[in-house]
Amino acid sequence: MFMKKAVVLLSGGIDSSTSLAMAQSEGFEIYALSFDYSQRHKRELESARLVAESLRVRKHLIIKADLSEIGGSALTSDIAVPKKVGASPTMPIPDNVGHGGSDDQASIPVTYVPARNTIFLSFSLGWAEVLNADSIFIGANAIDYSGYPDCRPEFLRAFQDMANLATKASVEGGRKIIIQAPLLFMRKSEIIMKGVELGLDYALTWSCYDPQKKHETGDLVPCGLCDSCIMRARGFKEAGIADPLII
Amino acid sequence: MFMKKAVVLLSGGIDSSTSLAMAQSEGFEIYALSFDYSQRHKRELESARLVAESLRVRKHLIIKADLSEIGGSALTSDIAVPKKVGASPTMPIPDNVGHGGSDDQASIPVTYVPARNTIFLSFSLGWAEVLNADSIFIGANAIDYSGYPDCRPEFLRAFQDMANLATKASVEGGRKIIIQAPLLFMRKSEIIMKGVELGLDYALTWSCYDPQKKHETGDLVPCGLCDSCIMRARGFKEAGIADPLII
Repeated sequence: MFMKKAVVLLSGGIDSSTSLAMAQSEGFEIYALSFDYSQRHKRELESARLVAESLRVRKHLIIKADLSEIGGSALTSDIAVPKKVGASPTMPIPDNVGHGGSDDQASIPVTYVPARNTIFLSFSLGWAEVLNADSIFIGANAIDYSGYPDCRPEFLRAFQDMANLATKASVEGGRKIIIQAPLLFMRKSEIIMKGVELGLDYALTWSCYDPQKKHETGDLVPCGLCDSCIMRARGFKEAGIADPLII
Repeated sequence: MFMKKAVVLLSGGIDSSTSLAMAQSEGFEIYALSFDYSQRHKRELESARLVAESLRVRKHLIIKADLSEIGGSALTSDIAVPKKVGASPTMPIPDNVGHGGSDDQASIPVTYVPARNTIFLSFSLGWAEVLNADSIFIGANAIDYSGYPDCRPEFLRAFQDMANLATKASVEGGRKIIIQAPLLFMRKSEIIMKGVELGLDYALTWSCYDPQKKHETGDLVPCGLCDSCIMRARGFKEAGIADPLII
């Protein structure tokens, strides 16, 4: 049977993994795309591999694209990842996380990686063109998010307009590649419930920006204190589901 | 003295090197950006280094971004680079090269690399944001070119619109990063005359898509038969200037 194809951006976190499961449930053959961009939390790539494997994607590509040379972010340089002092995964979640992500609601946190989604979407556009894929899925979210400019609906719309002019199809005619962001207006808890409904095992996923080494085993564990850990914890709490990653 | 900054995409070819010289002549401090994307003609990176050095740019970054994993182009995969049978650098230039680039005026040649300019511009956007640069320079040309979709003015305009929504400045206020394509409507011969006027040494540049090894020395020499060689030869011929690269 001929299946329509989708390139799915897969970081290994909750959002991208759920977006992959959703694309699959819509009948797309999945080409998962991850990036080794010298991220501090390279541990997420192991999760990306596990998720891709468990959902039996057609192909999983991990592209090296070193963003640390550009720098400017706590995720790719020596800038420290901000932590909620005194927070813990079992504590009540501070209300000022998400919807702007930091104490100063107006500012974009230092975990923002300049042009990251633009770069990742650009690679996925190239791959989608080669594969003759119908869609690109991105797990961008504009509700429970850190205020990054390149997660906003207006950015994604502008990327779509640009993509419509960037490919062979725009000159020779033929199908446009559609950018799909199915999680854009979902709360984190709704995303988690959707994934659970689709059989996604969140124990395979990884969210923490600043993995810590366990002294006893050397295994990496989530810090529990960065924005990403806190948003994950809040999502599971609101969904009334235990996070299978936290033992 | 405070200088305005520009990120300049530099392949090491005639167009990007000239666009760099032009940006510099306009008073920009230059941050040159090249890519090791597993291109068949990696020789161009040596030229990019030489040009960056000779024009004393502030910084030259070569980012590894392996586009061969995506494939789909004669420049990054096993697809052969088309050659004009019987052509040579000293022969009259076929009229059907440029303005579409191949015998079939309507089709885009196999040397097109899917989403290459989108990807390169995206990286330059990230770097420009980190540097707080004013402009990005790209040597795109819509006159003597191979019909690539991502060299067209409408593509560049759409990228600008997207870029205006992609960065911190679009959320927090502040300066937009301007995409500049000063060569967009210039003929190759005009570009060459402009570069010569600015003192650019084209002996340092590289255009050939399919470098050949000289038997005697092992040095790489231009093939003289690919679209890029032919457009270069025509440009120098029309400009009435000898190509200093051809000995």
